[in-house]
Amino acid sequence: MTSLPEYLSRVTELTDRTLQEVLPAESVFPGSIHAVMRYSTFAGGKRLRPALIMAAHEACGGAFGADRSVLLASAAYEMFHTFSLIHDDLPCMDDDDLRRGKPTAHKAFNEALAVLGGDALCILAFECLARIGRADVLRETAAALGTDGMIGGQVVDIESEGKPADRKTVDYIHQKKTAALITASVRVGAMLAGAPEEVLKRLTAYGQHVGLAFQIVDDILDEEESTEQLGKDAQSDRERGKATYPAVCGLEQSKRHAEELVRLAHEDIAPLGPKAETLRTIAAFIRERRK
Amino acid sequence: MTSLPEYLSRVTELTDRTLQEVLPAESVFPGSIHAVMRYSTFAGGKRLRPALIMAAHEACGGAFGADRSVLLASAAYEMFHTFSLIHDDLPCMDDDDLRRGKPTAHKAFNEALAVLGGDALCILAFECLARIGRADVLRETAAALGTDGMIGGQVVDIESEGKPADRKTVDYIHQKKTAALITASVRVGAMLAGAPEEVLKRLTAYGQHVGLAFQIVDDILDEEESTEQLGKDAQSDRERGKATYPAVCGLEQSKRHAEELVRLAHEDIAPLGPKAETLRTIAAFIRERRK
Repeated sequence: MTSLPEYLSRVTELTDRTLQEVLPAESVFPGSIHAVMRYSTFAGGKRLRPALIMAAHEACGGAFGADRSVLLASAAYEMFHTFSLIHDDLPCMDDDDLRRGKPTAHKAFNEALAVLGGDALCILAFECLARIGRADVLRETAAALGTDGMIGGQVVDIESEGKPADRKTVDYIHQKKTAALITASVRVGAMLAGAPEEVLKRLTAYGQHVGLAFQIVDDILDEEESTEQLGKDAQSDRERGKATYPAVCGLEQSKRHAEELVRLAHEDIAPLGPKAETLRTIAAFIRERRK
Repeated sequence: MTSLPEYLSRVTELTDRTLQEVLPAESVFPGSIHAVMRYSTFAGGKRLRPALIMAAHEACGGAFGADRSVLLASAAYEMFHTFSLIHDDLPCMDDDDLRRGKPTAHKAFNEALAVLGGDALCILAFECLARIGRADVLRETAAALGTDGMIGGQVVDIESEGKPADRKTVDYIHQKKTAALITASVRVGAMLAGAPEEVLKRLTAYGQHVGLAFQIVDDILDEEESTEQLGKDAQSDRERGKATYPAVCGLEQSKRHAEELVRLAHEDIAPLGPKAETLRTIAAFIRERRK
């Protein structure tokens, strides 16, 4: 059993190799759009979604790194995630200047290239998924991204700013904006390994618990850490009146809730045995992470 | 043989029925995103891309309106087109207040909903294509939309603003920004009818000629017609220093070139016989249109 940092670095290596291959070089005309796509994709993301795809694939009997469709899905999910970050950071949305310690896309380039760069990543990600040739994977992904998924969560997130937050709204935002794509990552990894319905059901629950825990920890970090530690503006959530867990439940209860969600995630996959060890380690890492 | 206005109204009826079915109602939470998606999709577009899909399908032996996959592709292409218009109209791009005589999405709603509404239409359109279950159609479409297609054209369009235009640049912009998706419409209609390679090649040439003619006529109309006739700001291209055909060749030569392209489009499909009659009529209509 490799350690988690070692696993994540192997995931990053495989994912980045695939991304290098599918993303046109900056020397390809028109260069500016390829530059912004690459700038944001290679900005030091944790590659959490690829790690979940690969770990779920392994948990269902797949061999690590051996399956081309898993690599394409990993690259695609990282591009979908990057697309959402670029658009969320725009002045008309969260208006963020920093992301992972670097200027956001519209700051490093300009707003038009940030909008179009996000669009192009989303389109290229769908093209990667199409190469896999599995309509079920495409539909699963599109549903997780759309207005009943990531986009829906982002809409409610923005529309809730500055209003008194309630627990139901925060749950909706976190489940849709963050947990939907994380759950889809886990499911797609399993689907590509041909997992039976019973296993898919367990992994879906795992994904929902881990996804929600991830966003709650994100909220907690925004409250507790400094800008330097985070690589993005700290306490920006509170300044903006964002609907977050600490805002509705307080810090201590948010931490207990994240703990509980990770415990539930472990329970979900307990019957899957040793093959699911990496998924267990990822769930524990989400609780412990510091940025 | 039905007249073209009659054909277009039947295409609109079928496409809009499918769009009504796939687009969530405004009453579905979160309502604002579904409202902006519907506002822009049902803003009175000509449904040219669906017409080309259906006419190409018929030209290759398909029966009009009988094939579910053709309806899904038509709805998807109209959503891709609407997505591109919403983002192109944004303040950071063309900054347009009017489109088809109505306020643009960011004017009628706000910028955040315009960005996310465009994103959501793109995602839903891919979901519709995934329902067809044809990986070749998905890849064809993604390629036509990406940085070697529509997005690439939009990037060069924006970056060429206010600079002295040359013919090569204008050709690139028009071929990528407009003709790529129009060509893909024709090809996808034919692919769904199982057209052989030889026919696809002819229809590809037809699509490229018709797509380029369409954009040149658009440029000419922007110069010649009033804002009221166009439903969008007239002469906005010249004011912004856009790279257009009239700007590099003059109005008269632009008109002659559009004529010539339509003649070539007719030649491309001459061997396809009477089944291709609607495609011929559409090409002629593109030359004659007034908005």
